[in-house]
This record gives sequence, C-alpha cells and structure tokens, in this order.
Amino acid sequence: MKVLTLNAGSSSLKYQLIDLADGTVLIRGLCERVGGPDAVHKFDRGLGELKRAEPMRDHHDALQLVLAVLTEAERGPIRDLADIDAIGHRIVSGGEFFSESTLIDDDVLDKIAVCSELAPLHNPPALHVIRACRELMPGIPEVAVFDTAFFQTLPPRAYVYPLPYEYYTDYQIRKYGAHGTSHRYVARHAAKMIGADVYDLRLITCHLGNGASIAAVDHGVAVDTTMGLTPLDGLMMGTRCGTIDPAVVTHIQTRLGYTPEQMNEIMNKRSGLLGVSGVSSDLRAVEEAALAGNERAVLALELYAYFIKRYIGQYFAVLGGADAIVFTAGVGENSEYMREKCLAGLEPLGIVLDARRNRLRTGERIISEDRSRVKIMVIPTNEELMIARDVEKIVDELRLAEVLAAGADDEVEQTLV
Amino acid sequence: MKVLTLNAGSSSLKYQLIDLADGTVLIRGLCERVGGPDAVHKFDRGLGELKRAEPMRDHHDALQLVLAVLTEAERGPIRDLADIDAIGHRIVSGGEFFSESTLIDDDVLDKIAVCSELAPLHNPPALHVIRACRELMPGIPEVAVFDTAFFQTLPPRAYVYPLPYEYYTDYQIRKYGAHGTSHRYVARHAAKMIGADVYDLRLITCHLGNGASIAAVDHGVAVDTTMGLTPLDGLMMGTRCGTIDPAVVTHIQTRLGYTPEQMNEIMNKRSGLLGVSGVSSDLRAVEEAALAGNERAVLALELYAYFIKRYIGQYFAVLGGADAIVFTAGVGENSEYMREKCLAGLEPLGIVLDARRNRLRTGERIISEDRSRVKIMVIPTNEELMIARDVEKIVDELRLAEVLAAGADDEVEQTLV
Repeated sequence: MKVLTLNAGSSSLKYQLIDLADGTVLIRGLCERVGGPDAVHKFDRGLGELKRAEPMRDHHDALQLVLAVLTEAERGPIRDLADIDAIGHRIVSGGEFFSESTLIDDDVLDKIAVCSELAPLHNPPALHVIRACRELMPGIPEVAVFDTAFFQTLPPRAYVYPLPYEYYTDYQIRKYGAHGTSHRYVARHAAKMIGADVYDLRLITCHLGNGASIAAVDHGVAVDTTMGLTPLDGLMMGTRCGTIDPAVVTHIQTRLGYTPEQMNEIMNKRSGLLGVSGVSSDLRAVEEAALAGNERAVLALELYAYFIKRYIGQYFAVLGGADAIVFTAGVGENSEYMREKCLAGLEPLGIVLDARRNRLRTGERIISEDRSRVKIMVIPTNEELMIARDVEKIVDELRLAEVLAAGADDEVEQTLV
Repeated sequence: MKVLTLNAGSSSLKYQLIDLADGTVLIRGLCERVGGPDAVHKFDRGLGELKRAEPMRDHHDALQLVLAVLTEAERGPIRDLADIDAIGHRIVSGGEFFSESTLIDDDVLDKIAVCSELAPLHNPPALHVIRACRELMPGIPEVAVFDTAFFQTLPPRAYVYPLPYEYYTDYQIRKYGAHGTSHRYVARHAAKMIGADVYDLRLITCHLGNGASIAAVDHGVAVDTTMGLTPLDGLMMGTRCGTIDPAVVTHIQTRLGYTPEQMNEIMNKRSGLLGVSGVSSDLRAVEEAALAGNERAVLALELYAYFIKRYIGQYFAVLGGADAIVFTAGVGENSEYMREKCLAGLEPLGIVLDARRNRLRTGERIISEDRSRVKIMVIPTNEELMIARDVEKIVDELRLAEVLAAGADDEVEQTLV
C-alpha cells in the first residue's frame, strides 16, 4: 500500500510518500514560506535534495506542486495519482473528540474545525489541505492522525487543572499533550527492541526536539505528559520556557505593561535555550558556546538537563519505577552530552548509563549498562511511518467492511432469489 | 532568654512569647482584621483562648494592645517590657539579600523595604511593626527571620527561569521559595528523631497547610523547592492552582478579557481544592464531601495527592534517592488519608507506609514500615520556636561580641595606664 502523509504548518507543507510493502520512502519533501514571496519547494526522491523556488499563494497551490512532482514524467515516484492508496493527515489538535486515528468524513472535518481554537496555527491549514485533497484526488480515502489522540487515555488527575472547574467544562481548558504520534511510535518500537509486549512495560519516553515533551506510558497506555493545554508547558525548549510560576506571567505583565499576546511571544519565541544563553535556540550551538567558556550557555545547558531529570523523576514515581527510558528526536537522538547530563546521579534509582554506548552513533540502540535495572534507549522517531501504518490499518478495515457488506448483499440477493 | 516572635500579615499580627529556658510558650495571640471596624484580639496564656473586640487603626495600635496584654497586672506573663530579651520578626521575603537570620539595623530595614515588591502584602506591615517595636521597646534587639533565607542555597539550575535572562538580572525574577523556616525546622528535627546529623541525610520535606510546598534538602542544604517567584507555584493548595501551563494564563485572559489582577485573584483565591471541588478550600470539608459521594470533591482529592506524588518523585531524582520524607503543617500532620493517597504506589521506590502507624494521632512519629528504605515521618512544625532559636543564637553572639569588645577596651585601658 502506498500512503501519502501530509503535515500542514501555518506556512508549510511537509509530506512523504511511503510504500508500506517494505517501508520505503519514495519521496519526502517540504514546501516552505507558503503564501510568501520567497516560497520554496524542497524534495528528495532518494538522490539528494532538490530545491525549487515556486510561487504558492496558499496550501492548495502547495499541494498541487507536490502532486505534480509525485507524478512527474519519468522522475516521479508514481505515474498516476490513482497509485496513491490513501492519505494520512497529521492533525495537531483533536481536542477531546478523538482518541485514535480516524477516517475523515464531514463530521470529522467539523470537529477538526471546532478544535482550531486549541491549535490556531495548525488545524486551519490542515483543513485547507484536506479539502484540497478531496478536490484534487477525489475518492482516495483520507485519515486524520491526531497529535493529541495518544494522550486521551490520561486520567482526570493528570489532565484537569486545579482552576475553577468550569474552565474545564465550559472552555475545555485541560491538558491535551502533544507529540503523541512520536511517543506512541517509540514506545512500541522500544517494546519490540526489548522483545516484550508494550502492554507489559512501564516506559518514560523523552521526545527532545525543537519542541520537547516527556510521556509516562503505563503498560501501553499514556498516563501523563509534560505538554499541557498548549505546547508551551513542561520542559525548557529551544525558545520556549516550559513550566514556570504562573504568577510570573502576571508579574511581568503588571511590571512591564505587556499584553497577553506579547507574553505569549516572549514565552514561546524568546525564552528557553535562546533566552538563557543569549546564543541560540539550537542545542549544538549552545554546547559549542559552553565549551568556549560562555557562562550563560553553561547555565542554559544545566537548566535544560535539570528540567528533563525532574520530569523523569516525576514519571518514575507515577509509574512506580520504569522498565525503560527512551530518547528520541533531534536532541534526544544526537546529544550524548545532554543524555549523560540529565541522567547523572540517577544510579541509585537503577538508571545506569553506559558512557561508551552513549557515545556511539549507530541509530537505535540500548545505551544503559547491562546491570541497569532501567534500560536506557535511543530510538530515532518516525512519525510519518506511524501515520502511514495507522492509515493502512484503517483502510484495510474499510476494505474488509466493504467486502463483507458486498458479501452480505450477495447473500441477501441469494435469499431473495 | 524570653523571645517575642512577631508575624505581621496584611491585616493581622500573630505573636508568641517563648521562654527558651524550657521552650514554654508563655502567651500566644493573634490580632485579626487590623484596620477594620471589627478588629479582634485573641490570645491564650495557657488557660484557654480569650477574645477581645478592640479598635486597631493599624499595626502600631495592634502592637500596643499586645504589649499591654503581655504586661497586664497579675495576669500578664511578664511584669515589664524589659523582661523581653529580644524580638524575632518573621519576614516573608528577603530576596537575594539574606541567606540567614539577621540582626536588624537601618541597612537591613532598607533591604526589607526593597523586597516589598516581592511580598507586597507582607513586607510593608512587617516594616511597620519593626518601627513600632523600636519606638515602644527601644534598646531591645530585633532579629529578622526570612521565609526565603533557607532557599538561598538553591543552585542556579533550580532558581533561574528559562525566560530571557535579563528578567533575572534586571528584575530579579527567579525562584525564591517560601515556608523556609518550617522546612528548616522539620529537616533538623527529622535528623534528631532519626539520630543522625542533618548534614548526612537527603530529605524531602512536605509542608502541606493552607499554603503548601515541598523542599529537597540535600545534606542539610536546600537544593530545590516548589514555590517560585511567588507562593502560587508548585503544589495545588486550598485556593491556589499551583503549577499550570503558563499559556493557560494568557489563554484565559485572551478568551475572557481578564486583567493580570483578575487572573491573580482567580489563581490565588478561587482555584485549588475550592475551585475543583466547588465545596471548600479546607481539605477536611472536601474529604467529607467526597465520602458523601460528591464526584468533584473526589477529583479534587485525586489531584491534590497527585501533585504531591509527582513532586516527591522529582526530588527523589534530584537527591538520587531519599533517607526520609517528612510531612508537616495542617494537612501534612492531620490527614492520614492524604498521606496514604500521595504515597500509594511508591513501594517500588522503597517508600513503604505502615497503614496502622499512619492512622495513629500521636504527634511526631515515624509512620513507615520498618523495612521501608525511606523513612516516612510526621513532625508538627513550629516556626515560632525556630524563629526564637535563631534570635537566641544571634543575641548570644552579639552579647559575646560586646563582652569581648569590652574586654579589649579594658586591655587597651590597662595598656594605656
């Protein structure tokens, strides 16, 4: 089955065409600065990245360019759009409506629209792309895969905020989480690597990218995560502050006269590694500055690691211990320095890193010492593959249902005859 | 030595006169609604509480009434104000100026005034009371005991917020902590009960009162705590929300048009147990409602316990394990239900509550099973005693210095003669 995955951002469209027969990515690409004067389409068909500056007024235009490249004579990975079996859309917020991936129909579209309030930068362009798919590829089944779905299993004690209760019931203000597809993927993959069933394990999964979150996965079920109503909460990130005293928000507003919008800008774009170090939001650049003796860069690294350590401790308590801690995404996969730093001192909890294994750069692997009660793992995340697999499962079920329905019709006909 | 402890709130003045020879409280009292038309002075000289409705325009008036009761003919615990050896003032914020209790002079007064910005409801009335003491009891040494001092040992990774760094350097926005005197008292007392030196122990101290905070005390030194710039952060409390996604603050403001002041009011006065349960800010009332089947009350208890459990997990990781967990203050000392609930499931971490010992109500005690690697303790807090002891130590040093100085003068005189 060939699945096209689509991931719409406010001014971007990321995609992959995956052949699930063997998991090959036939093409991956990204339209950037959609709607801007300098829009560009980058893509890679396995022979290196190509880059084309092309005008795109909106996500509909972007999708048309993508489909043209997919079916380009001779060089395109497919001949005809009909070769695409199904489409999977990454949707940032499914609110409380969706606890799993879902075939898209009009009702689903309406609900995604309702959730736009919770993901104002992401849900509207995704809706735009879904509608464009319906128009440009009619009849090809589309599936919505929600970033929040994995966390719909959280118990109320983890998702309700201790605010006046009506803020939850009347305004849906609660913890929703994010990066659910990534946490789900690495949790399952960790179980496979350990040779156990995910339903037998207690896992702490650390998705440390430009955005970053940690999840507690109890016997296959997410029970807590660090991101909240929005992707600002929890860990310190590249440019986001993560959890702070909520009264700091009002204190700064009162002192400096900032509006809520200005505060959001400060907390989301000017804080985190960038805000503390003054150097960069990129961990590699901050690590280099720290090595060169920049004290604020050193402090930024200390803080970043300390946030991770404290949340690992939280979830260790929540799960009553852990079978494995998994690191994934940019920082999680690539910074041996940060992995070592955030786990330092946790040996009494049975969490013992193997310094040598930690330094190897060999893809998915176990980096704890053999004697470590808790396995420490590095697993490259693959949200697109997870999306494609969800799509396959749903489309298979759909086809089976159609076959069964057709069979039932035959029976009915036979009975009537 | 007889020490008068004074604790000024925005419209209250709490006091005790303690004889440190044997730790006896000679009188304890509270002036309430100072400045209001229904001001009242309650006090207890060991023969039951007396209550007098008396006009008090301000904290100066309140102090005069207190001193009158102290020296009341026949019934007062002392004959003359000169019988008071020293005065200890509880100061809510000492900012970054004070890492220990300090003899008050003009410079200290100025610094407490500077910190008023960090504790606008508490530092100004305390200053008022200090000045009244100078006027009404001239010559009696006064000592400031800061709620924040114990947490001045926090490392930068624990106190710096991942905001733009200039918010710390230019506006002193950082974690200061609170309840320091209580955490310090129970940490020392726990060591005494265990029969070890506090400098040999890793302790997690849980001060669970109407306000609530947890501290990680590493070999006698505070290394982290849940309260932040303000006493709103960290645990869910009676009426305070504790930690929430900071973007929830701006989200509610944008959605409902609230000012920073209104948000502070909601997060500080209408949230926590009260906000979730809709019943009360008092844990006992919420426990009763839950027993009667009120589902929001049940949820409020779940949340309250879950916040405590997660922070215990954090500090367990920060300390690399713990020798003891200490419960104190109203809820910590009296709710066997909450202690059991927040520790449930932590047995794999070596934290094993003894259900029977937990239910006893016999003052300070160890309530873990003998096999528990981590001792669990209940210790009634006594901030006034801690304040009085600090005062005694400083006044003793002062007197010793005076004696030595006098001796030196004698020597000088002898030399000259």
